[in-house]
Amino acid sequence: MHFSLLATDKASKARAGEIHTDHGVIETPIFMPVGTAGTVKGVHQHELNEDIRAEIILGNTYHLFLRPGLEVIEAAGGLHKFNGWNKPMLTDSGGYQVYSLAGSRKITEEGVKFQSHIDGSYHFFTPERAIDIQRTIGADIIMAFDECTPYPCDYKYAKRSMHMTHRWLKRCMDQMKATQPKYGYDQVLFPIVQGSVYKDLRTLSAEAISSFDAFGNAIGGLSVGEPDEDLYEMTDLVCEILPKEKPRYLMGVGTPVNLLECIALGVDMFDCVMPSRNARHGMLFTRNGIINIKNKKWYKDFSPLDESGTSYVDHAYTKAYLRHLIISKENLGIQIATIHNLAFYLTLMKEARQHILAGDFNEWKNAMVPKLQNRL
Amino acid sequence: MHFSLLATDKASKARAGEIHTDHGVIETPIFMPVGTAGTVKGVHQHELNEDIRAEIILGNTYHLFLRPGLEVIEAAGGLHKFNGWNKPMLTDSGGYQVYSLAGSRKITEEGVKFQSHIDGSYHFFTPERAIDIQRTIGADIIMAFDECTPYPCDYKYAKRSMHMTHRWLKRCMDQMKATQPKYGYDQVLFPIVQGSVYKDLRTLSAEAISSFDAFGNAIGGLSVGEPDEDLYEMTDLVCEILPKEKPRYLMGVGTPVNLLECIALGVDMFDCVMPSRNARHGMLFTRNGIINIKNKKWYKDFSPLDESGTSYVDHAYTKAYLRHLIISKENLGIQIATIHNLAFYLTLMKEARQHILAGDFNEWKNAMVPKLQNRL
Repeated sequence: MHFSLLATDKASKARAGEIHTDHGVIETPIFMPVGTAGTVKGVHQHELNEDIRAEIILGNTYHLFLRPGLEVIEAAGGLHKFNGWNKPMLTDSGGYQVYSLAGSRKITEEGVKFQSHIDGSYHFFTPERAIDIQRTIGADIIMAFDECTPYPCDYKYAKRSMHMTHRWLKRCMDQMKATQPKYGYDQVLFPIVQGSVYKDLRTLSAEAISSFDAFGNAIGGLSVGEPDEDLYEMTDLVCEILPKEKPRYLMGVGTPVNLLECIALGVDMFDCVMPSRNARHGMLFTRNGIINIKNKKWYKDFSPLDESGTSYVDHAYTKAYLRHLIISKENLGIQIATIHNLAFYLTLMKEARQHILAGDFNEWKNAMVPKLQNRL
Repeated sequence: MHFSLLATDKASKARAGEIHTDHGVIETPIFMPVGTAGTVKGVHQHELNEDIRAEIILGNTYHLFLRPGLEVIEAAGGLHKFNGWNKPMLTDSGGYQVYSLAGSRKITEEGVKFQSHIDGSYHFFTPERAIDIQRTIGADIIMAFDECTPYPCDYKYAKRSMHMTHRWLKRCMDQMKATQPKYGYDQVLFPIVQGSVYKDLRTLSAEAISSFDAFGNAIGGLSVGEPDEDLYEMTDLVCEILPKEKPRYLMGVGTPVNLLECIALGVDMFDCVMPSRNARHGMLFTRNGIINIKNKKWYKDFSPLDESGTSYVDHAYTKAYLRHLIISKENLGIQIATIHNLAFYLTLMKEARQHILAGDFNEWKNAMVPKLQNRL
């Protein structure tokens, strides 16, 4: 696996690159749809491929570990074989879900003991175990086991937690070195910068993380409720420190505007549940602004879902029909809205990349941002 | 619109035919997927067309009347335009849902007053109104407004109800004659035979209904809990009376075995929620028997969903993956199982038709029935 940096924008820090994996090339900047339990909710694999044009999807270690479980995934020959998605996959370390979903949890230096939200069973994740599990799931990109601090988080806790995350990273790196891929293709580890919204901690963490010389680096602990100014300030600060020749992944971000602003700060990879989760409530992102399809104004609007859309659903269905489906809580409505939103996110990334390569990204971004924020 | 009877099986009463509509030809025997609220739950229109190969779908007048409502459907130019399904459509009269879903209801000679299960609002359906509504929805095939008696039903009630259904039919026929299609294509009415499980009532009803000389005729009030022997006995008796040169539609039936047995009795058209509803609980119908995909036995079965299946999902996904999705209550699981089951029902009808045309239907049917009942 390797990363090639192809171009950097002159008027911003935006970058265009390529991540080469054994499951194919990822063109950056890229958005990764979230496939929690081995499925992007309501989306067929061929739709992900042909309609959404996803290049890499994310799997959640916590969910996959509990269901279907490692025995099944390993017997299948890894998650790619299990769910039939043949392009690159990234798994988170499970930490975030342990903190946010598990019934009860206890964090110690050794690791995290937690209770399944499904059946109440007890489990113990350590940095070493998180690596072993992700090896077994078979992700192309494995994430380090960290503690994602909440917002707000007091300085003392953020500092102590960050240092533990660094010690856990050392254990993750050692476990990566001590083990081999299980299915014949390469797997790499991304460490995660923490430090909440404290500049000195973020600086220290970015420097510590960079020193590990991993394949790529991630920024965690943001998009957890802090104001956008903090998100941008921390991302900018960290991107300035992280090595230029390695891909940078901003975890859990965000709105289309967040994505463009963070691309301008030098981020290459994103994931977020927003396009799929908001689709379920009838919120559509478009290049002309945001549509709440439940609004009465659309009830007799028989124009295509999104005339500027790149997915077939944008032209096969009308606004009035989607409104009816979402209001009637019909699954087809969720399916249509999900495909639309994810296809829009991917198209936006593709377009950003073209403008970076063409040298006019910043100008384009500044023209797009106000349009994306419109309420239609 | 016209119906052509192409062949009748020698060893049974099975028939192969063609219903010509302004939205295309329906090859009978046919199964009609149920598209309750203008959508076959969880299935894209192009999947209905290309993967399931549906030739006609059913819409529910009760649901469509309440949501999105006639104003929206009429403004769209009818249901075909509203939901983008360009092939034939049939609507029920709304009666069945009024009896089974509505909050409260009161049946009089004039019609049925009922309360919406969605918002508690009061509405009044009469035979005339049921025709007007279906004209506005724009169904190719309109069903008469009847009372579907429950099972069991005492003789006196069944008789009184049947006579009212006949009087209502007269009003439906008159309303059809007094009104015109709204969207430039032909619409025809199917009357419905009632009479519960009483032979004399069924005989009387089939004769009364036949005398109206409608485009086609339906058999209602079955598949409501009675034993299969009663279903077959009543269907046989009624088919013997209904005119041979008109299509026969058995409403709300049934399992794959029910379909084959009733084709053998002379039925041409079927609809049922079973393939889609049971899909949601992980029950798959196949030519080798019934699969409960939740069973532990499938948890590491990485063979294709159904090697003999005619839909792409049968080959794109494995049993173990579908089991995981259904157990995890993931919508994608329901989508896959629904496409599989509906495609199987349509394939079974296609195959039955080929055997009727080839002259060996009964032999084939007798070989298929035990296989279809296997529990895999």
